[in-house]
This record gives sequence, C-alpha cells and structure tokens, in this order.
Amino acid sequence: MSKSQGFTIVEDGTVTTPKGFRAGGLHCGLKKTERYDLGAIVCDVPAEAAGVYTLNAFQAAPLKVTKASIGIEGKLQAMIVNSGNANACTGAQGESDAYEMRAKAASALGLAEHYVGVTSTGVIGELLPMGKIRSGIERLPDRVTSNGGDDFCQAILTTDLTKKTICVTLTINGAQVYIAGAAKGSGMIHPNMATMLGFITTDAVIEHEELQNLLSQVTDSTFNMITVDGDTSTNDMVVVMASGMAGNERLSDRHPDWEAYKQGFQYVAEVLSKAIARDGEGATKLLEVSVEGAVSEAAARAIVKTVIGSSLVKSAAFGADANWGRIIAAIGRSGQEVNTETVDIRLGEFVVLEQSRPVQFDEVLALEYLQGELVRYHIHLNMGEHKATGWGCDLTYEYVRINAAYRT
Amino acid sequence: MSKSQGFTIVEDGTVTTPKGFRAGGLHCGLKKTERYDLGAIVCDVPAEAAGVYTLNAFQAAPLKVTKASIGIEGKLQAMIVNSGNANACTGAQGESDAYEMRAKAASALGLAEHYVGVTSTGVIGELLPMGKIRSGIERLPDRVTSNGGDDFCQAILTTDLTKKTICVTLTINGAQVYIAGAAKGSGMIHPNMATMLGFITTDAVIEHEELQNLLSQVTDSTFNMITVDGDTSTNDMVVVMASGMAGNERLSDRHPDWEAYKQGFQYVAEVLSKAIARDGEGATKLLEVSVEGAVSEAAARAIVKTVIGSSLVKSAAFGADANWGRIIAAIGRSGQEVNTETVDIRLGEFVVLEQSRPVQFDEVLALEYLQGELVRYHIHLNMGEHKATGWGCDLTYEYVRINAAYRT
Repeated sequence: MSKSQGFTIVEDGTVTTPKGFRAGGLHCGLKKTERYDLGAIVCDVPAEAAGVYTLNAFQAAPLKVTKASIGIEGKLQAMIVNSGNANACTGAQGESDAYEMRAKAASALGLAEHYVGVTSTGVIGELLPMGKIRSGIERLPDRVTSNGGDDFCQAILTTDLTKKTICVTLTINGAQVYIAGAAKGSGMIHPNMATMLGFITTDAVIEHEELQNLLSQVTDSTFNMITVDGDTSTNDMVVVMASGMAGNERLSDRHPDWEAYKQGFQYVAEVLSKAIARDGEGATKLLEVSVEGAVSEAAARAIVKTVIGSSLVKSAAFGADANWGRIIAAIGRSGQEVNTETVDIRLGEFVVLEQSRPVQFDEVLALEYLQGELVRYHIHLNMGEHKATGWGCDLTYEYVRINAAYRT
Repeated sequence: MSKSQGFTIVEDGTVTTPKGFRAGGLHCGLKKTERYDLGAIVCDVPAEAAGVYTLNAFQAAPLKVTKASIGIEGKLQAMIVNSGNANACTGAQGESDAYEMRAKAASALGLAEHYVGVTSTGVIGELLPMGKIRSGIERLPDRVTSNGGDDFCQAILTTDLTKKTICVTLTINGAQVYIAGAAKGSGMIHPNMATMLGFITTDAVIEHEELQNLLSQVTDSTFNMITVDGDTSTNDMVVVMASGMAGNERLSDRHPDWEAYKQGFQYVAEVLSKAIARDGEGATKLLEVSVEGAVSEAAARAIVKTVIGSSLVKSAAFGADANWGRIIAAIGRSGQEVNTETVDIRLGEFVVLEQSRPVQFDEVLALEYLQGELVRYHIHLNMGEHKATGWGCDLTYEYVRINAAYRT
C-alpha cells in the first residue's frame, strides 16, 4: 500500500476488494481466440447504483436495459458484460436480446431481473449470437468468485493491450472503506471492437442519489476529459455499485469525510481514464494537457479537448516534436475566449512560449523529454482563475494500420 | 473548352485569363530549394475586392493588413504572397513587417499602398527574413506578366503536391466574362508550411458589396466544407478581385444572369476546394460526404463535417473498408437532431444501411469501388428537406509521417 492524499492505494486491489463483491469471466465464443468474452460483477446484496451513458444518439440496446434496471429502485446486484459484439444498431431484435441477457443472468444468479445491468462492447450492427451468450451465462455463476477481478478485467478487453484496474481505501469514522474500478477503452469507436466501459465498486454506505451526483461530477473531470480519436462510442457507459457493507456512517456531501471519499473516488476514475488514454489504439505515449488561467471551467475544458484531440498535436507528439505552433493554432480554433497576447506554453519544464512570443529552449533536452512515455503540455492563458486537465495519446502509424486494415 | 451548366470551363485558364490581370512568381530564398516562394497577382486597374478570413483567434499579421487595405475603398490592385513563413504569432514586429511588405510592393508596382493586400503561408512563430523579402519584391514587377498564372500557383505551394487552378467563362448580356481561381492547401496547419489560401480573379463588373456577399455565401458551401485534419490555420484567407473590364452590365442579385454568374463562381470555388482536399497531406483519395433529408441546412453541414472529420472514417477510407458503423457513430455524435430509426447510407451505389438496419451488399464490388481515387458516402436522414455536401481525404501512414517527422 502507498499513501496518497487522504486515501491509500491497495496495490493488488480489484473490483472484488470492496466488501460484498465477486467477479469473474469466461470464454463463450464471441472472440475468435480463447480469450474471455463474457464476465460479471455480482454483489452479495442489492447495491446502490448509478450510471453515466454515452451522448451518442445511437445509444446501444444494453444501455437502455441498464438504465431501465437502475431506474426502478436505484439498485443493482450484478452487471453482466460481453465483449466482441456491441449489440448496437440492431433494432428491436437487439433490444429483445439485451433484455434476454438480463433475464438469463438474473435466473442463473438467482436475482430479481431489475437488479441486473447489461453491457456490451464490440462490432456494431451485428446481432448477438444468443446461443453462445445463453450457454456462457449458464456457466457464469461458477466462475464468479471473490478473486475473479482479474478475469473480469480480461473479459471486457477488445483491442486493449493492458488490463486497467485500481483500488484505494480510506477510513470513514472508524470504518475501512474501499473504492475499486476496472475499465476498457482503446479506440473510442473501433467498429469491430468498440467502446469505453468503466465499472466502479465500493463498500461505502451511500445512497443512489448521492452516488449518481458524485459519479456525474467526477466523470466530467475524468472519463469525459480523455480522447483517443475524438469519436464517441454508441456503447460508452460507467456504472458504480455500492454494497454498503463497510458499515460507515452514511455518506453525503454534508459528511465531514465526504471530501476524502470524493478524492478517492476521483482518483480511481482518473487512474482508469489515464490508463484508457495511454492504451489508445496504436499509442506510444500518454499526453496530459492542462490549461490554467481560463475565464471559466467550461472554457478551460473546451481548450484542453481541442488541443488533445488535434491530429496535428497528436502527430507531433508521436514525432517528439516541440511544435508549439500546433498547440497555439488548436487553442485559437477552440471557439473559446483567448487573449492572443498573453499565452504561455510549457512542454514539461521547457518554456516555449511566453506572452505569446517564442522563447529559446534547449531542443536536445526537450527532445529527450518528448520521447518519454508521459508528455505534459501546460497552457496558461493568463486571463482568469479557471483550469482543467485532460488526457490523450499520440497519433501513430499503428493507429492508421489498426483502423485501415481490419476488414480488408 | 467543355460546357457545364450555364458556364464553360476554360481548359488552360489561370488567374490571368480574366481581362486586366497579370501574375507571377520567383524564388527569394524563403524555401530551401529553388522553388518559387514569392508571388503576386496585379490588376491593370483598382479592382473591386472582397475577402473571407480564418476564424482562428490567432489571426496572422498579413490578414490584418489585407483587411485594412480592403477596408478603405473596397478595392485592391495587387495581392502579394510569400510561402515558407506564415508571419503568425510574431507580435508587433510581425505586423510591422507585413505593413512593410505592403509598402515595398506598392512602391515597386507603382500603386497606392491601400490597393495592396498581403498573404503569407509557412512556419508559425518565426520573423520574416525581411532582407530576402525586400530584394524579392524589387525583382517582382518584371516577373508579373499575362502568362504568369502558373508561376503564381507554384509560388503559393508549401507541402502541396499539385498546382490548383481553374477558369470558367460565361456570357452576360453579350459580354464574355471570366472567373478564375488559384489555391493552396495540404494540412490545414502544417506549422512549418501552413494554411489554405484562395485567390479568385474575375473581369465582371460587380461592386464590392455584392462581391463580398457572393464570396461569403459561396465560401460556406465550398471552402468551409472541406477538412484535411480538422485544424484551422491562423492564415486561412480567400480573396477575390473583380477588374470590371469585361464590360457587362453591372451584376447584382437582381440581374437576370446573376444565377449563372453565381454558378460559375461556385464552380470555381468548389473545384479549388476539392483539389485542396484531394491534395491533403498524405491523402490517397478524395472523400465526398453528402447528407440529405436533414431538418436544417446547418444540421446537414454539421453532420457532413463530423463524418468527414472522423479519424476512424478517414482511416477506414484509406483501408477501402465498407465500414458503415463508423459513419453512423459519427452521425450520432454530431450533436444534431437524428432519428435513429430512419438512416440510409450508400457507399457510392452500394446501399449498406436502410432505415438504420444493415443491408447485404457485394463486398468484392464495394471494395473495388472504395479503392478508387474518389469515394462518395451518401447519408439520407429521412427527416426533412435540407442537404449539404463536403469534401475531405483519407488518413494515411504518410499523414502521420509528414506531421510526426518534420522537425526531429
């Protein structure tokens, strides 16, 4: 364990570390190789639940089902997930398949249907092979165990290269509380293998409404501040389940430990977000862009997203090119209020622009920095007091290869 | 000459074909190789003039100078242009340099200063080497001739591979009127070699205000409907000069031949726009995206731009991948009103989606079509009566190479 702010990182923690959770995965045949493609997180009790969903107009069927489940009591006892097929743009049949997945999982796990949420990721526009899903679900209860967190992580991967998991703990009026998360990402859309998914578990005592507010707030500064290629999947979703088994005093924003809990929650979401960006399709490095001195938080966020989403900025990052002209051009087209005479830019510790004028810097040392696996661009607008940070990755030959070469 | 609509294409026409115009180019030393990097278009008389300028907040110094010139009488007699240095983010010195370019050109050509416009394209953030510019301008008058249109085209190129020029003619109440154009593009920003520039010449009798309205309208459906990488340069500008030497009855939107003139003007702008998109950095093909059945023209345009700007759509185009999932996902995240149940998509003549459901199509023949140099995606939303078309290019290894590898 290593201490960080008001919470402690649990080194080998997974989504099953918070009390009351089990998880697991298996191969049911959606992926061609033997990799896991069906998984579940199950709670011993109906957990308080909250979700955030893609803004894409073509929201996939499983998102509707999960929303409907949470809508009834604000609770979930299981999330079932498949990878390899997104069940998106599949019409009435797709919706009926998603509801059948929910019913089968509820029956296999002995739960009420509306306590089960459904998630899918993968190819768009193909119907789920329900035979494989059904037989997979039947085998699932045996695979869901208190040490199945890693198997679950594997079951949600598509073109991702690494499992993304994190766990923190803190004490709330004497009770030890855990918050853990698992995620998948890669391309925001890879039409064969799609989507960002996040699953957060916690054993804190906290009710649906507070949990939903917390998740929405934290998502704005974490999951919503990453971009791989500017595309938004039809299936993006982050779901949190709180078992309440830590036995702490009920949390709300009036609780003295609320800030500490929120920090831990924010940290879990941020670690998962960065891991998704770093593991973007073809990426060789993580880019972090921070904007300070903006006239509003919305302006700061919009500028961060424009810079981190620029194909030219991303290509320059791949080439370790100290190319501030691309950064300033992206700031200028962000549509936000900017004073064109007062912009400072640092690449790591290298000041390259001060009051919108170029500054001499050591190109050799800057190159060394820019060749690293984590590159930070700092922008100071010197206009106001607001700031934001976001994450992305470089644009590489491998990104083009992955996305050009799949089907042909 | 080949007939098209109400006008005729002049096969070898350039910006000097309309009566009253001369043009030319030379090498003054801004580019490392002997390629031309300084050019001008000059009119025998003060021409009615109009311009449209980048929306990037960091508008470069030469744009301010050109605006100031046109602002005085609505007329220009010469446009001077250099490539290799954008004179952008260069502060007070850059502005003073741009004004000096104007003064030197006016003096060398024997014109009033406010009849000269200035344009620059190239590296951002470096001061113009004024010694080279000054001696180049002194040699310029001898190079400006009635057959220097091609030399001018060469002088405005940076990472472009091909010269972009077009000329049309039509008769307006017995007078033969010409409209011609030259353009450069490539990356919207390449911070070493930047920018889209357009120059349109015509000998029509038409006044500043009508010309400005016409240019603004036509730009919305042509130059503003192309994207190479979603980045907007600090130096983008399109300028039109009308010599009035064709001797036609003064044109305005109440003139019976206005529509024919507008069509010719639109055609010139559209040909240049497509040429810029086709010659985008690293491009192997031109993509044309059209949207029909939208609830408004603004919605149709926004959807076109989202689709044509999607890195995933562009990568799929490079791979000749009939990947409608990426198109529908881009439509869905455009922020525009969409009925998720009524979308039709055609790739060329291949219907792949009907009423938002996948349709079987011949993958072999579709692949053959998608491997061509011009690929058209048609989207029908089946909601309203509005439509729009836009142009872009594929995202290739070469784009990444050009933009990753320049400085390092």
